[in-house]
Amino acid sequence: MSIFSTRVDFDTALTALTVPDAEAVVAARGRQAQLTKPAGSLGRLEDIAIFLAGWQGRAKPGLDRARAAIFAGNHGFTVHGVSAFPAEVTAQMVANFEAGGAAINALAGAVGMELKVVALDLDRPTADFTLAPAMDEDECLAALSAGAAAVDPTLDLLVVGEMGIGNSTAAAALCLRSFGGDARDWVGPGTGVDDAGIARKCAVVERALAFHGTAPATSFETLRRLGGREIVAIAGAVIEARRHRIPVVLDGFISCSAIAPLAAAHPAIVDHCIAGHRSAEPGHGRLLNRLGLDPLLSLGMRLGEGSGAAVAVAVIRSALVAHNSMATFAEAGVSAG
Amino acid sequence: MSIFSTRVDFDTALTALTVPDAEAVVAARGRQAQLTKPAGSLGRLEDIAIFLAGWQGRAKPGLDRARAAIFAGNHGFTVHGVSAFPAEVTAQMVANFEAGGAAINALAGAVGMELKVVALDLDRPTADFTLAPAMDEDECLAALSAGAAAVDPTLDLLVVGEMGIGNSTAAAALCLRSFGGDARDWVGPGTGVDDAGIARKCAVVERALAFHGTAPATSFETLRRLGGREIVAIAGAVIEARRHRIPVVLDGFISCSAIAPLAAAHPAIVDHCIAGHRSAEPGHGRLLNRLGLDPLLSLGMRLGEGSGAAVAVAVIRSALVAHNSMATFAEAGVSAG
Repeated sequence: MSIFSTRVDFDTALTALTVPDAEAVVAARGRQAQLTKPAGSLGRLEDIAIFLAGWQGRAKPGLDRARAAIFAGNHGFTVHGVSAFPAEVTAQMVANFEAGGAAINALAGAVGMELKVVALDLDRPTADFTLAPAMDEDECLAALSAGAAAVDPTLDLLVVGEMGIGNSTAAAALCLRSFGGDARDWVGPGTGVDDAGIARKCAVVERALAFHGTAPATSFETLRRLGGREIVAIAGAVIEARRHRIPVVLDGFISCSAIAPLAAAHPAIVDHCIAGHRSAEPGHGRLLNRLGLDPLLSLGMRLGEGSGAAVAVAVIRSALVAHNSMATFAEAGVSAG
Repeated sequence: MSIFSTRVDFDTALTALTVPDAEAVVAARGRQAQLTKPAGSLGRLEDIAIFLAGWQGRAKPGLDRARAAIFAGNHGFTVHGVSAFPAEVTAQMVANFEAGGAAINALAGAVGMELKVVALDLDRPTADFTLAPAMDEDECLAALSAGAAAVDPTLDLLVVGEMGIGNSTAAAALCLRSFGGDARDWVGPGTGVDDAGIARKCAVVERALAFHGTAPATSFETLRRLGGREIVAIAGAVIEARRHRIPVVLDGFISCSAIAPLAAAHPAIVDHCIAGHRSAEPGHGRLLNRLGLDPLLSLGMRLGEGSGAAVAVAVIRSALVAHNSMATFAEAGVSAG
């Protein structure tokens, strides 16, 4: 049973977005004002606690069940030499995730977050999007549904991440189609190609945009034509998390690119999302600006896998511990100034 | 038995600074190159792991015994109305630290860090530094020694923090004396004074600088004349940590101001220090630039107490878990590209 049976299901989900619990927001804000510190002095830690209170619907939000959902997919356009790594690395890294040896295993473990790895038809790459839509309608709906299925309604936080050799090129195409500009605005070194590699990536993106340029620029069509299965699954997971009011921590450029086609038509889709970090990929800062998101961290990371978001969860956890366990002025007998 | 018996002890310590273990740095760097990720893709997490390896002298550094040492002191110049809070809040907050109700209790607990609170003669404020040196020589040496005594040689990380109503004014004076500029470059709202309060703070700093302007501008004299006991104790703790090669995470503007008079004469004093964050206090970014430190976080925090540094420790912990527990390419059977 898939949650997105038709593209109408998808469009409907985007036009019926949940909102945070206003009472919980007020209660959390009131609590922050009573804690033993000058008002506002914990900066974004206060904002994070109030944000999570609203989406979780309780004055003292928790992180008892946080999950990192990592989606993997392969891309037809990798035949054009857009990555420093061979395509078989996608499956090798999925095996590494499952064996516990990757960065996301370590970083999720460091913050007590469960890890769900979803490999999407790795032996069946998407079509080369310079010549055809990356997916047909059923394939796109299946990827959206796989993303949604990775979201358990009992989660209190969701991190989304991805693995897919070549997928920074798909991400650039999605951003260009969603927000305009030049290919060079959105193409970068990814996991480490040189200037010639960047030029090849730009050419591939430009050919893709030329091929699909006259198609309808709806959220669904943009995802279907230019996305990859792992990217589309992230879009499905973010939408499903919103349905359950589960706050989401976005990772890097590629994770965020999954939101670009949604946000271009429905900017409020990011309201339950925290940008975990700004990656070293040059297009990511531009994309975050377009999404209206201020990244929590900026540590020069550029790995994907949900790794930057998982580090951000360490900060989020600290924010909640402060919010939930500090004494109030009255409790501590401290003059409130 | 104090570690700084005379000012010569202090000067000697600053001219005999330890260096990191070069072999451990090479080993840690070599390990990072073998982990299953594109080279450099964990950004500053990699730098942090290598930095800690060097100072801890082992290829796989740990955080088995991290301590936040929080020093508290009171200031004679608070009679001039430089703070939004009354001076008795210093002692009230020390009681709150001891009862476990403050932000630093929550944030240190969130990262498994022990907390040591050192209250320094709270009932005996320093002299009003617009009229006299804040401390006599023995008082300054006692504060330095109290800082050093808070550093156990078996620690693997030290966070330094402070509490002291009015101390952002002392911090501004220390920065101005150490690095020049105008009072307005270093004075800010602190815990929340308005424009009139900022003007009063500037006037106090200018009067202090005028009074002490012809004194020798040595590290010791600047600390003694313009510091407070809690600030001087931080300087002593940072120097003592260096002697034991214990890496230090600095907190906000006031913690960093303790280093300013040391770094002005001995810039290498910051080599074992990580800037945990850049606070909302405007002078902090300028001070970090002068110290040559790039802050790990920038979350708009402005509380002190070691709170920003404690959040940074959450990131540092994630960096070490990744460094120590990820699989190598060979272990995981992943193509290295």
